[in-house]
Amino acid sequence: MKLEELLERALAGDHLAISRVISRVEYPSKEGAWLLSKLLARAGQAHVIGITGAPGSGKSTLIARLIEKYRGERRKVAVVAVDPSSPFTQGALMGDRIRMQRFATDPGVFIRSFATRGERGGISTAALLTVEVFDGLGYDKILLETVGVGQVDVDIMHAAHTIIVVTAPGAGDEIQALKAGLMEIGDIYVVNKSDRPGATETLKQLEFAIEGGIFKSRTGWKPIALKVSAALGEGIGDLIEIIERHLTYMSEAGLVKRRVEERRIHALKSMILWLVENKIDELLSRPEGSSLVKDVIDGRIPVYTAALKLLKLI
Amino acid sequence: MKLEELLERALAGDHLAISRVISRVEYPSKEGAWLLSKLLARAGQAHVIGITGAPGSGKSTLIARLIEKYRGERRKVAVVAVDPSSPFTQGALMGDRIRMQRFATDPGVFIRSFATRGERGGISTAALLTVEVFDGLGYDKILLETVGVGQVDVDIMHAAHTIIVVTAPGAGDEIQALKAGLMEIGDIYVVNKSDRPGATETLKQLEFAIEGGIFKSRTGWKPIALKVSAALGEGIGDLIEIIERHLTYMSEAGLVKRRVEERRIHALKSMILWLVENKIDELLSRPEGSSLVKDVIDGRIPVYTAALKLLKLI
Repeated sequence: MKLEELLERALAGDHLAISRVISRVEYPSKEGAWLLSKLLARAGQAHVIGITGAPGSGKSTLIARLIEKYRGERRKVAVVAVDPSSPFTQGALMGDRIRMQRFATDPGVFIRSFATRGERGGISTAALLTVEVFDGLGYDKILLETVGVGQVDVDIMHAAHTIIVVTAPGAGDEIQALKAGLMEIGDIYVVNKSDRPGATETLKQLEFAIEGGIFKSRTGWKPIALKVSAALGEGIGDLIEIIERHLTYMSEAGLVKRRVEERRIHALKSMILWLVENKIDELLSRPEGSSLVKDVIDGRIPVYTAALKLLKLI
Repeated sequence: MKLEELLERALAGDHLAISRVISRVEYPSKEGAWLLSKLLARAGQAHVIGITGAPGSGKSTLIARLIEKYRGERRKVAVVAVDPSSPFTQGALMGDRIRMQRFATDPGVFIRSFATRGERGGISTAALLTVEVFDGLGYDKILLETVGVGQVDVDIMHAAHTIIVVTAPGAGDEIQALKAGLMEIGDIYVVNKSDRPGATETLKQLEFAIEGGIFKSRTGWKPIALKVSAALGEGIGDLIEIIERHLTYMSEAGLVKRRVEERRIHALKSMILWLVENKIDELLSRPEGSSLVKDVIDGRIPVYTAALKLLKLI
């Protein structure tokens, strides 16, 4: 199939064509660059919503609820899942997989998950470019799911207009973890599993952290905390309403476009690092590289000196 | 102070000198390279134990118990904590900080924590080189603490001879998370908080995953799961015994040295990426870089094309 035709079909909503466009954009190639240039010109309209939280907080169930609601409003929704523990990815438990399968036949929903994490820059790059693809293809809401602790998460969350931090009621340890992690930059804090004991207490702790200025958003927006039960479908309407309120805030503050700029800068940096990473692996397998590696292993050359030498070879 | 004197004092166990050696090695510099070359020649003897688990699993309390036991055997212990939610790092809750303070006056214990995580290669590099420093300074046991989900954790765990995965009893979600994450490569699985309901069930799930071959170690060693209560000090003796058994296994299989080689290769790769990362930031702030960034933001040049151009400038 010609690239023009592939793009046309993807724009028409053909799922197979969309998959192919993503795979071409994800890995550096001339075809990918051409497709991306066409899509970048169309992108910048979507609302990117980051959803982050530890494994077990129920992010995916919440995402399924958001998809339902948005589909009820006839909005097109895309999910980019970068959580290796997400049921959207390979490691899924059967129950979760079935839960998501009802979206498989809906042309207005597209889910792309990244299960592998071998490469450093690879996933950040691919995820950020996939956001551009979905945006360029006219998806209204792009949900970015991450676990919120690694560097990849930090990279990716830069792309989100609205950041939702999901937590489940329980140990006070949780709040400590939130404080120390990426999660303190949430715009909206969701206590999921509101039917479980301790939900109100966790909500209060979050509100306390917000009032005390411990949890600050990046924009001057005062974060909002609320309880929901994704499993029971409770509180989802309120959450959607707050998400829209936040988008309005961002829009009025002129920050929607700035976020798009940031995500493109991040994609650029990630891609350079990724290219370098591939280059390093190639170099280390060549004779001059592997003899240098041997010197480092045996302690004959300090790491810093060897790194500078290899950098010159690149 | 001269570098020779600094090194001598550090080797004699002077904590202030050790701190200074670490700070010099951590950031690329000539002095750091000299110190590292001296220490690399001495390193390769320590037993590096990786301890990984989600925030709230009680890793730090467990580490405190291990330190106590090892100190009882007059072994020198160093901790390298790369978990931003760890009480060893800045975000600590007061209670945890006090818990750790009793080690502050013990010359046989040194704790180095990495709280920031702004840079990609920076932390992996610094943590891996800090392991070399502690090893070269004659610490017997080096405990590496990570949350076990991000790329930094994967990088760092390559340096460990023995990997302990800590989990707390609770939702079955936990096992799912373990399955999908780095955590499936544990040599030892610890169900902490054994006094809590569900501990036996979680242990059984882990044993099931081990028997079924879902959890495999990297070496042919069959993982062992056990219950402990770090808070109550129960099961710690058993854990120590299993850790030693694993070390004997590694030693007999000739894998102790190989792990040291792997950690040096990783340190080398991390350092190159880190140097490149700094270079990118510098380039993007210069005129030719920032005009390229503008082209990417406006969608005039695809990310891949711009990345290749910038790579040439490096």
